Amino acid sequence: MTTKKIGTQTAALANPPTLAGWANVVGKKEGEGPLADTFDYIDGDDTFGESTWEKSESAMQKQALGLALNKAGQAAKALDWLFAGDLLNQCIGSSFAARGQEVPFFGLYGACSTMGEGLVLASMTLDGGFGEWAAVTASSHFCTAERQYRTPLEYGGQRTPTSQWTATAAGAAILAREGPGPYITHVTVGKIVDKGITDTNNMGAAMAPAACSTMLAHFNDTGRSPNSYDMIFTGDLGTLGSELLVELLRKEGIQMQNHADCGSMMFDIENQDVHCGGSGCGCCASVLTGYILNNMKAGKWKNILFCPTGALHSPTSAFQGESIPGICHAIAISTTK
Amino acid sequence: MTTKKIGTQTAALANPPTLAGWANVVGKKEGEGPLADTFDYIDGDDTFGESTWEKSESAMQKQALGLALNKAGQAAKALDWLFAGDLLNQCIGSSFAARGQEVPFFGLYGACSTMGEGLVLASMTLDGGFGEWAAVTASSHFCTAERQYRTPLEYGGQRTPTSQWTATAAGAAILAREGPGPYITHVTVGKIVDKGITDTNNMGAAMAPAACSTMLAHFNDTGRSPNSYDMIFTGDLGTLGSELLVELLRKEGIQMQNHADCGSMMFDIENQDVHCGGSGCGCCASVLTGYILNNMKAGKWKNILFCPTGALHSPTSAFQGESIPGICHAIAISTTK
Repeated sequence: MTTKKIGTQTAALANPPTLAGWANVVGKKEGEGPLADTFDYIDGDDTFGESTWEKSESAMQKQALGLALNKAGQAAKALDWLFAGDLLNQCIGSSFAARGQEVPFFGLYGACSTMGEGLVLASMTLDGGFGEWAAVTASSHFCTAERQYRTPLEYGGQRTPTSQWTATAAGAAILAREGPGPYITHVTVGKIVDKGITDTNNMGAAMAPAACSTMLAHFNDTGRSPNSYDMIFTGDLGTLGSELLVELLRKEGIQMQNHADCGSMMFDIENQDVHCGGSGCGCCASVLTGYILNNMKAGKWKNILFCPTGALHSPTSAFQGESIPGICHAIAISTTK
Repeated sequence: MTTKKIGTQTAALANPPTLAGWANVVGKKEGEGPLADTFDYIDGDDTFGESTWEKSESAMQKQALGLALNKAGQAAKALDWLFAGDLLNQCIGSSFAARGQEVPFFGLYGACSTMGEGLVLASMTLDGGFGEWAAVTASSHFCTAERQYRTPLEYGGQRTPTSQWTATAAGAAILAREGPGPYITHVTVGKIVDKGITDTNNMGAAMAPAACSTMLAHFNDTGRSPNSYDMIFTGDLGTLGSELLVELLRKEGIQMQNHADCGSMMFDIENQDVHCGGSGCGCCASVLTGYILNNMKAGKWKNILFCPTGALHSPTSAFQGESIPGICHAIAISTTK
């Protein structure tokens, strides 16, 4: 039996799973941004009809999953596995969303890289011969994140110029073992990279080295280059982290001219007061399950590389003076096998 | 291509991976308990030489992984993947432990079921043809858990009779695609089960229904019964949750007379003032990677079922009046394929 692992960090899927359905839901501010017409549902007041922000976040994840299942023409009971994660302590956004769904459940924590971690695990599981259908969901909510990571909203704290805005968003993708594509063909799993950044208001800088590391591994492992893809999407480095990534890759001799960042695309940076852009598990999850996959389906791109990044610190580790470990996973998606 | 999923929640591994090495490290109190001689390292003051309890927990996880790799005769660089989790907000116990290890990393959150979730994912990944070596680690620390979930240690809060004691412990297992066993032959992935328990000091009661649900699924999916196993280990229901599980199964027509619970075994319940027993990701992880696997290796048992349980709530969800969602995964381990 041969291994489907190639190089040091990459799995080449022998029978690439299909992305059979995808959907997203977002909050009001996100719905006023440039990607508005790529969202399946925009809530009017970010509550999603719930009495606490945490319950709102669970409701978002549940709704995104329901919409994605619908597009895939499947019911939740068809799912063999559900992979889910979020930013909340003990990942309650996901576990409360999965409660009552009756699906075998894997809770993940990859910070803002969670959608990528889920896609990696779901595609390896299906390609490995385990089941026919899997779902991946991830979410974030501005109001749950602010009070958990920063200050109560009522405090009205000022934000530094390097900060990002946690998106109120959830994305869900349904993977099928067989189908017409788009296909997940290769997945590169990130190592933890920590270059000593301690400023929790500059997470783009903390995550850019991880993105660089995983991309280099992906190109080495697969023999590909940035030009192998129509577009390379990171999420969510923001504007500053994106510049840093391009520079880091350039120092490694790699020119990347087809790059866009989900955090930089989510909002109108000039006019929506988000400083360096969007962040949160739901940011790149909702950009993938809207703008990116919709455009692939419409024929705009044939091959893309989706590289979500995460900052694996906590308020406690930051208070204790620790630097911020970053991680990035890379998922190659193609309209052909 | 046939599926290796059987029934509704179980994967039957076609080429069962081997547990090639395992190790654990624990704190002082755990080292004074009945399982003392099954631990690889017992720390004298629970600091593991670090300046904060969170750093101590990371050090534990790192040390357990190093010892397990050593027993498997491998270096960290041989690992294709590392699956890790803990109870801390944003799972910093794991991500800081993995920093500098240079291994592709998957962060998991399954509360006290995390060791099981990791074993499920690692064995499906290797059986699926992705790589040759994987590691699974999980940890908990009494002092990090107390201040995060309950009250500062200095407060000296009293504990209710139904409460459990978070074990200061970490366990690590190294899985290999080929080897002489013991083998992971079947894994049953839990659904989230919530019977409305809201008392966070009675987590055994919250988790017992999840254990019952997953065991029933395992027996249905595999055509097995409790008697198919020499021993069935849950972790960590504690004494009260264990009684409840036996009763719940009896109502379903299943007599289970070969059951033991890692939480009930970790401490001397009568004399160590732990009320209903041990808990925490590290509790069942260290009992598996010591008492259980050592005894299998010594020939005491040929087939066991390892069923770690998790309570997927958070202090925030509890404050908001939410009940406690439980989960349990079941891992069948055998000395023969």
